[in-house]
Amino acid sequence: MVDQPHRPIGKSALQLVLATSEEQEALVETIESAGYQTCLGKTGSMELQKVVSAIETAAKRQGLIDQSLYREMHALYHAILEAVQGVTRGQAQLGDVMRTVGLKFVIVRGIAYENQAEGEWIAVALYGTIGAPVRGLEHETAGLGINHI
Amino acid sequence: MVDQPHRPIGKSALQLVLATSEEQEALVETIESAGYQTCLGKTGSMELQKVVSAIETAAKRQGLIDQSLYREMHALYHAILEAVQGVTRGQAQLGDVMRTVGLKFVIVRGIAYENQAEGEWIAVALYGTIGAPVRGLEHETAGLGINHI
Amino acid sequence: MVDQPHRPIGKSALQLVLATSEEQEALVETIESAGYQTCLGKTGSMELQKVVSAIETAAKRQGLIDQSLYREMHALYHAILEAVQGVTRGQAQLGDVMRTVGLKFVIVRGIAYENQAEGEWIAVALYGTIGAPVRGLEHETAGLGINHI
Amino acid sequence: MVDQPHRPIGKSALQLVLATSEEQEALVETIESAGYQTCLGKTGSMELQKVVSAIETAAKRQGLIDQSLYREMHALYHAILEAVQGVTRGQAQLGDVMRTVGLKFVIVRGIAYENQAEGEWIAVALYGTIGAPVRGLEHETAGLGINHI
Amino acid sequence: MVDQPHRPIGKSALQLVLATSEEQEALVETIESAGYQTCLGKTGSMELQKVVSAIETAAKRQGLIDQSLYREMHALYHAILEAVQGVTRGQAQLGDVMRTVGLKFVIVRGIAYENQAEGEWIAVALYGTIGAPVRGLEHETAGLGINHI
Amino acid sequence: MVDQPHRPIGKSALQLVLATSEEQEALVETIESAGYQTCLGKTGSMELQKVVSAIETAAKRQGLIDQSLYREMHALYHAILEAVQGVTRGQAQLGDVMRTVGLKFVIVRGIAYENQAEGEWIAVALYGTIGAPVRGLEHETAGLGINHI
Repeated sequence: MVDQPHRPIGKSALQLVLATSEEQEALVETIESAGYQTCLGKTGSMELQKVVSAIETAAKRQGLIDQSLYREMHALYHAILEAVQGVTRGQAQLGDVMRTVGLKFVIVRGIAYENQAEGEWIAVALYGTIGAPVRGLEHETAGLGINHI
Repeated sequence: MVDQPHRPIGKSALQLVLATSEEQEALVETIESAGYQTCLGKTGSMELQKVVSAIETAAKRQGLIDQSLYREMHALYHAILEAVQGVTRGQAQLGDVMRTVGLKFVIVRGIAYENQAEGEWIAVALYGTIGAPVRGLEHETAGLGINHI
Repeated sequence: MVDQPHRPIGKSALQLVLATSEEQEALVETIESAGYQTCLGKTGSMELQKVVSAIETAAKRQGLIDQSLYREMHALYHAILEAVQGVTRGQAQLGDVMRTVGLKFVIVRGIAYENQAEGEWIAVALYGTIGAPVRGLEHETAGLGINHI
Repeated sequence: MVDQPHRPIGKSALQLVLATSEEQEALVETIESAGYQTCLGKTGSMELQKVVSAIETAAKRQGLIDQSLYREMHALYHAILEAVQGVTRGQAQLGDVMRTVGLKFVIVRGIAYENQAEGEWIAVALYGTIGAPVRGLEHETAGLGINHI
Repeated sequence: MVDQPHRPIGKSALQLVLATSEEQEALVETIESAGYQTCLGKTGSMELQKVVSAIETAAKRQGLIDQSLYREMHALYHAILEAVQGVTRGQAQLGDVMRTVGLKFVIVRGIAYENQAEGEWIAVALYGTIGAPVRGLEHETAGLGINHI
Repeated sequence: MVDQPHRPIGKSALQLVLATSEEQEALVETIESAGYQTCLGKTGSMELQKVVSAIETAAKRQGLIDQSLYREMHALYHAILEAVQGVTRGQAQLGDVMRTVGLKFVIVRGIAYENQAEGEWIAVALYGTIGAPVRGLEHETAGLGINHI
């Protein structure tokens, strides 16, 4: 039977992206002891391209995905784009519509369902601010993308 | 100067929507002691209309917004739609594209910036599952919408 | 050389859809004396389908388009959808996202460029209110679609 | 009770953006005597960013919004984006899809409902041409965005 | 090295969905001898939900995907939605915007890259007509979605 | 009565865009003997603007459309954008979301319905690859746009 595990992959990614730097270490340990791999980073830009690229690069460098396999890159790419939809809410655009983001990102990868045959999944969580390219003229934003890998 | 407060409104909403039922009470207290009002609920449907309606109804019933003022309804409505974008990631549709959601929702309202002149803001956070209308054929999803009120 | 005529087709449609019932008759005369055909109507619904259908039916009944020719129906249809984008601003949806419209519509058809070889064009203008299905909880909305026919 | 005033804010903005330079002065006077503030300008670009920026700058320079308050910038920004949806009809993009705009813009701000508790609202109306970056290969376009402020 | 195979999966799906009933049998044989599984069907509706459902049901009945595995359903679902984007071109909607489709669909599954480690992929091709719910008032439409499985 | 001709315009365009260089010549002949004009080309870019531009330029150079008539450019432009929707599936963006395309394109123009009064139509078919700007990290993609001219 297909069931959510004790520690859901999306919730893990969201909790980690919301964590303070003090909370991070313990939370990473908890999530990794549930069998997941994790990867954290920061990115900020008026160019969406740089946001996508920063997350992809972190995932490759920290070994979360195997960049020689297109299927892994493809799974990650669509998870990123889905998380970006939550951040941009309707138009996957930043500078083109005169706004910028400052984001923390978390990628979590692993067995996400009790049925082992479901294989590995990947979650991308984003949290930070979006707004005008002027300090203070911004509010919070978040997104979550999930894909099978 | 315009600055994020110690307890950001969007993070508060996301943490509360991710909280277990044991964690909820204490967290509500913490958030409310920071000057916010909160409202929690659950909704699940293949009809997006029912999701929007459930959140609006909870906000009105629990007194989070004044339903006799259109400007409050308007602020809440757009915050809900933005959160829905994160949940649906590209097409604000459920049954029309053969999928259903089961969601927890949290609404947080209050002064969100140190500069009191910024007035009140509203945050809507959603977290739950999205997938085929078959138990288990679903993954997690989340969304956050923020608006001035 | 391709130039805008003295009376642009889109502006004519917008002015007519904004006109009060007292102003309408004289404005229709002015627009028609510039060589255009016009058609006016009202529609209101939570179902987008009924809005599209009401405009198509009016255009056919008042002879603004020849319903036996698919190319005319196709030109009108896309002009309607483009006007609807202005009304719905991002999601071409009404009841699905818990909102309703009350709209006046105007269709204008005719030679829109000084170069006669540009042939006939069609403009669809919409103006009215959009909001919650509760009287008063609504604001104005408008849209303009233009296509060659 | 919540009711439309004698002079609706959106209609005022649309009428002013459609007005000829001869009609403008009298119309501005009529609209301002109804208690609204107004702001007019022109912008043209293949870059959507410049369109958004031109409208924001005009609003700030002419004192229609208080740029030190994020809530005012936020309200204006979303009204602009909604008006842009009407102009671009489906893809909030210009040069990326090989098209350019030449637009007049009008911003109107003030009490828009009889119930004073509804407070101030802002309307952004756009009217002009959209098309290929070649003179004459273009047709009219319009958009209206409205938000509480 | 990652390379396209001699018989690309997407092209195979498109050729098969375009094939006449006389050409179908031989083409299926050619595609299957390249190591792919195939599945064909027809669907027509004003409800997008029924289109998605018809393709999912055919894939399950003909054993192209294992319906007990969510990851397979998830891969197919997103491939269907991507193909639907090509068919609907901008708004994944049918009856809501007063149009209907009559479609042939083809699903192809198998090893799509020379590097066996890339594993299996799935392609969904759609071809048919879209238009008003009146015979003859329609034109052709097509879509292709591809996903790793 | 309005009916599909023996050789549908959209299917002709799709078959030609899928044809190998050996098959092309004979297929062009068959399509042109059915009364259509055809135009083929290749384009590849991370900038959507260059893709649109390459197709427009080919259509003008090869005389498929009369560039002095805006109505012809307008018909072609919207057919291109619709085909691009199939290629990009949800976001008409390339480099902005960190992806690139390599595409073959085919334009077909002519009488597409048995009823001669339906006049000329234009079809744009695209086929190729989309993916990361790294060789091999890509999959196939296709799109079809059709418009009256």
